[in-house]
Amino acid sequence: MKALVYKGPGEKAWEEVPNPTIQQSTDVIVKMVATTICGTDLHILKGDVPEVAKGRILGHEGIGEITEVGSGVTQLAVGDRVILSCVSSCGRCSNCRKGLYSHCMDPEGVEGIGWIFGYMIDGTQAEYVRVPFAENSVYKVPEGVTDAEGILLSDFLPPGFEIGVQYVHVAPGDVVAVIGSGPVGLSAVMTARLYGPSKIIAIDLDDSRLKRSADFGATDSVNSGDADWKEQVLALTDGQGVDVAIEAVGVPQTFTMATQIVRPGGHVANIGVHGKSVDLAMNELWIRNIDISMGLVNTNTLGMLLKLVTEHKLPAQNFVTHEFSFDQILQAYEVFANAAQHDTLKVLIH
Amino acid sequence: MKALVYKGPGEKAWEEVPNPTIQQSTDVIVKMVATTICGTDLHILKGDVPEVAKGRILGHEGIGEITEVGSGVTQLAVGDRVILSCVSSCGRCSNCRKGLYSHCMDPEGVEGIGWIFGYMIDGTQAEYVRVPFAENSVYKVPEGVTDAEGILLSDFLPPGFEIGVQYVHVAPGDVVAVIGSGPVGLSAVMTARLYGPSKIIAIDLDDSRLKRSADFGATDSVNSGDADWKEQVLALTDGQGVDVAIEAVGVPQTFTMATQIVRPGGHVANIGVHGKSVDLAMNELWIRNIDISMGLVNTNTLGMLLKLVTEHKLPAQNFVTHEFSFDQILQAYEVFANAAQHDTLKVLIH
Amino acid sequence: MKALVYKGPGEKAWEEVPNPTIQQSTDVIVKMVATTICGTDLHILKGDVPEVAKGRILGHEGIGEITEVGSGVTQLAVGDRVILSCVSSCGRCSNCRKGLYSHCMDPEGVEGIGWIFGYMIDGTQAEYVRVPFAENSVYKVPEGVTDAEGILLSDFLPPGFEIGVQYVHVAPGDVVAVIGSGPVGLSAVMTARLYGPSKIIAIDLDDSRLKRSADFGATDSVNSGDADWKEQVLALTDGQGVDVAIEAVGVPQTFTMATQIVRPGGHVANIGVHGKSVDLAMNELWIRNIDISMGLVNTNTLGMLLKLVTEHKLPAQNFVTHEFSFDQILQAYEVFANAAQHDTLKVLIH
Amino acid sequence: MKALVYKGPGEKAWEEVPNPTIQQSTDVIVKMVATTICGTDLHILKGDVPEVAKGRILGHEGIGEITEVGSGVTQLAVGDRVILSCVSSCGRCSNCRKGLYSHCMDPEGVEGIGWIFGYMIDGTQAEYVRVPFAENSVYKVPEGVTDAEGILLSDFLPPGFEIGVQYVHVAPGDVVAVIGSGPVGLSAVMTARLYGPSKIIAIDLDDSRLKRSADFGATDSVNSGDADWKEQVLALTDGQGVDVAIEAVGVPQTFTMATQIVRPGGHVANIGVHGKSVDLAMNELWIRNIDISMGLVNTNTLGMLLKLVTEHKLPAQNFVTHEFSFDQILQAYEVFANAAQHDTLKVLIH
Repeated sequence: MKALVYKGPGEKAWEEVPNPTIQQSTDVIVKMVATTICGTDLHILKGDVPEVAKGRILGHEGIGEITEVGSGVTQLAVGDRVILSCVSSCGRCSNCRKGLYSHCMDPEGVEGIGWIFGYMIDGTQAEYVRVPFAENSVYKVPEGVTDAEGILLSDFLPPGFEIGVQYVHVAPGDVVAVIGSGPVGLSAVMTARLYGPSKIIAIDLDDSRLKRSADFGATDSVNSGDADWKEQVLALTDGQGVDVAIEAVGVPQTFTMATQIVRPGGHVANIGVHGKSVDLAMNELWIRNIDISMGLVNTNTLGMLLKLVTEHKLPAQNFVTHEFSFDQILQAYEVFANAAQHDTLKVLIH
Repeated sequence: MKALVYKGPGEKAWEEVPNPTIQQSTDVIVKMVATTICGTDLHILKGDVPEVAKGRILGHEGIGEITEVGSGVTQLAVGDRVILSCVSSCGRCSNCRKGLYSHCMDPEGVEGIGWIFGYMIDGTQAEYVRVPFAENSVYKVPEGVTDAEGILLSDFLPPGFEIGVQYVHVAPGDVVAVIGSGPVGLSAVMTARLYGPSKIIAIDLDDSRLKRSADFGATDSVNSGDADWKEQVLALTDGQGVDVAIEAVGVPQTFTMATQIVRPGGHVANIGVHGKSVDLAMNELWIRNIDISMGLVNTNTLGMLLKLVTEHKLPAQNFVTHEFSFDQILQAYEVFANAAQHDTLKVLIH
Repeated sequence: MKALVYKGPGEKAWEEVPNPTIQQSTDVIVKMVATTICGTDLHILKGDVPEVAKGRILGHEGIGEITEVGSGVTQLAVGDRVILSCVSSCGRCSNCRKGLYSHCMDPEGVEGIGWIFGYMIDGTQAEYVRVPFAENSVYKVPEGVTDAEGILLSDFLPPGFEIGVQYVHVAPGDVVAVIGSGPVGLSAVMTARLYGPSKIIAIDLDDSRLKRSADFGATDSVNSGDADWKEQVLALTDGQGVDVAIEAVGVPQTFTMATQIVRPGGHVANIGVHGKSVDLAMNELWIRNIDISMGLVNTNTLGMLLKLVTEHKLPAQNFVTHEFSFDQILQAYEVFANAAQHDTLKVLIH
Repeated sequence: MKALVYKGPGEKAWEEVPNPTIQQSTDVIVKMVATTICGTDLHILKGDVPEVAKGRILGHEGIGEITEVGSGVTQLAVGDRVILSCVSSCGRCSNCRKGLYSHCMDPEGVEGIGWIFGYMIDGTQAEYVRVPFAENSVYKVPEGVTDAEGILLSDFLPPGFEIGVQYVHVAPGDVVAVIGSGPVGLSAVMTARLYGPSKIIAIDLDDSRLKRSADFGATDSVNSGDADWKEQVLALTDGQGVDVAIEAVGVPQTFTMATQIVRPGGHVANIGVHGKSVDLAMNELWIRNIDISMGLVNTNTLGMLLKLVTEHKLPAQNFVTHEFSFDQILQAYEVFANAAQHDTLKVLIH
């Protein structure tokens, strides 16, 4: 089959590789119908994730059709059209039983834990993929759900919803601020609307991104390059601050911003990926009655989001700005890696 | 001043009465700007609520302007435009501290508890009204909120939202059924949308009411006169039943219907007013892992709903089908009492 | 092997039967170390559960050692000492993912759902048992946990804790009433203590049972045969009623009692098994702001309770009043069936 | 009357001052029966809290008898024996309605917000004290509750319970670690037990404090001076870390310790008072699915704790190690300030 193979820092190839085979009784093999590219794939390609070995097939998002099932698989069958969760999980360990799939412990250590596609095992940017612990890690696709909708539930929409919105209990009437208007921030904007906030304030340095955020549900925007950005945010509240501040960038400055605009009794959600530690002003914050949440996506809301997509209550497909065929995957990477130039959010490869 | 006075079963008059005066240090006097009529007022007029004395001024909903404050009132001032909660509550007893204002215990027993306007004390269908425990029982109206929006928060929207939606934890993706498409049922339909359900199924015997329910957010409808109504409902789910069934009629048959369509792990919310006991099939239900909630409105969500109305996220005003001036109040009663004939939902008297 | 076989209403035998074998890749075979008898077993023997076929091996509780594993089992091994949940569940369907194991849907319908041991498939009162969906349905036993402790987690303690205590959110300081002081009621008494109530009131007709309830954590008791039983209960509260009323009998009268003593804002939990419908006074209750919960045990708290037993924070073993060997099982039934005569709570068969 | 007056850094006097008088209609005057000293009082005396003016009467904890009530007070009467909350709150603003009394906004700004006794207004180490917003800020004392029990509910026990235990949802079976075995840490140890944890691990540098922690409910202890302290903690869990880590010291090192021992999906509660910012390793923590809570006490659990104390379910009085009369208050300060020397936890002055 053909697959996108990591060849070492800065190098990749769409090349012929052996087809995957069933290794554990709980595996299935899936013929990929559509996949996409994640910012993490770019990090891996830069060499930022050294534990990824040369020769690894990249990708952890996708939708496809089952072509083979292991002997321990009783609830999936050849021909099922399924969304692959980016998180592989046994479904039985104490973490999985709590829905904490990202920290699956798989007691026997057969497969490792959580996110492994395109990282510890071969991924989804390929014609076929082996899916471990398949019964807990794939979701059958209801009729009427498109490929574009499906692939965005693999990994893209769940983090903003789970860590950004659910962990911090967004409630009707809340004022929510989302710092960072890139794709991840916009996923939080779109999914925050599911809990009826009265305002969603997009905060970013780039006016064109702020303008676009309105298409995804932001009701207000503040350019954080303005000297009085904080006062602008507070003026959109009752003066006490926002109920929920969502950090969607991943640098110390934006994390600190989130802690500065949250009201007493409010919540900070971190969905940005951080490479450095952050100076947390506990001398000021200890009296603020706030909490700060963070974490990897579990995709334990994939079924919930799928119901909404099926009923056209969540316009997930709006994130797809470009489409490619599988053999145009290198071009897709080009467009995704230069997002500002192409106004890219997510690419659909099918 | 002029007021609508209950003269005994079947009799009422818009007549001159003495102006109210401050009685407790925690009272305020409000000049009414707008009021409305509730089904409960009709019940009182029929003589169904014998504890209402002749001479009582009716009405428990309204918006107005403060004209006088008691000596213990520090946070309200003459001139404040306020929404009156239908529930009077001290805000300090153990029930009030939990937001259970409908069961306010007022330790000293000065005023009685919960709903008293137009029932135990004079009400809001008048030019002026005395408001006990005012600081806990009125809400300042933000700029831009209209009279129509304001009066619907006094009593009309909160029960559907608090008892019908919040008590039973409607969640994104849920399938919600609302039995009864009268005004109360429609208030549950509209406010259920704040939690992102995937479907809201309106159930009623009247096709024109079912048709209208779509304007308030129902995505599907089932006529409960159909022999296979239950199968129709289940067919709109995964076959297991709805996540939440809201009873908005108040008779044994509809209550039983709610218990028959709820899925294992689901919730039944009762917002109907019941005059009889109900036969509950515990022999079938004990294994169903459901819960059944019920109760009086607390209006402890009035502030939350007011934020949404202020930001135009909740089209409350859509419930107002007819408008009258105060001196047309008898005509307003006529139109409200004959709702089917006039397609009445709520009347605005101002 | 030897097993206790149901021979039709009123008849049972401890007799030689074929050993069970692996049927699905997700099965394991367990050599039983200890088992016990449940009230449900007595009902089956009386013929009250007609779907139980003659020839069925009874029992759904136990602890044992794995002797064989199916090809799809990766996290359990021969030699593991395990507690068997009374509920068999696939762990992957939408109900299981919510912890609603009692309503497991097993999409392929291979095994049926929820409680099946000693009912739809052969049970645990035997030398060996086949366990379907084993990885989701058994729990490894930590060192130091005795057989007596272990078997009580199979089925006995979880219902009181899950349906009686957790569903209704017992909280520190609460006044909890438990109606019925049989074994099930006492399991609610013991596990309610985990949430720090200020009082636990045992209510029963039998003074000797009430007296014994203190050994399990009841702080007060009321004999419901007293004409003023309700006043006695209210006098143990602030006059408004109990925060939580747990029904642990299963007849209309006790269910109604529970609804009569619960305070506004309080909760009713039903753990009794009902054979008849109940007259629910919705005309009085609709204004009470209460909820009524009910359901089958999920055993999704088995892991939580096991941690407490392991650390000696939950004296589960106090429920074992009599011990027998496997070949004395008919005698064990005799003692269990005549509980009043023998002061029996639970019997340990090992 | 006599009162303890702050005379500037390092200086205080028990001297004659004018009696307090009613200033607002919502005030009461209380004759103090008992009070105590808090670590915060020592900080003020050192001059660490410059906003405290010379001449201020210190103290924010106490129990007393009402001698006078303002004209707006309807639910309290002369002669009532009451516990004074350390937090003064209007009970009506949007923060108070959520129970966030520490951030009371009192819209008219009459009194300022939250903690003001012995800080912005005269405090409780006096023969009489004026209590603003009295109806929301004092609690009537049930019969049988002693002075020692009562004063510990003013301020001492609630922070550990509210911020340390409730904010982070301690649950039955949890492993809880408390870093710091001073009085505040021990208050978290004692109140954590109300939610049925399986283990409470005390962590401190001082073995004698660790030993004492067992008297308050710690089941295990680890000396954080040991090189392998972290491994010792993990060994008391399943290897993944504690469910809840409570920081009860207030320095960067202990805060960091808390983040290092918490399991994925676990919670960090900060109850220590911090004077510096903290380096938060977001580069490691963002993937851990944890949350970090912090805040001032609201005393919104005072009623709940009072029920437990009344029923002898919470041995609050065990914290009182020394007793003094009011005229020995300087000696009480001496004993409290030199806690290590005298093994002091809390002093009772009455």
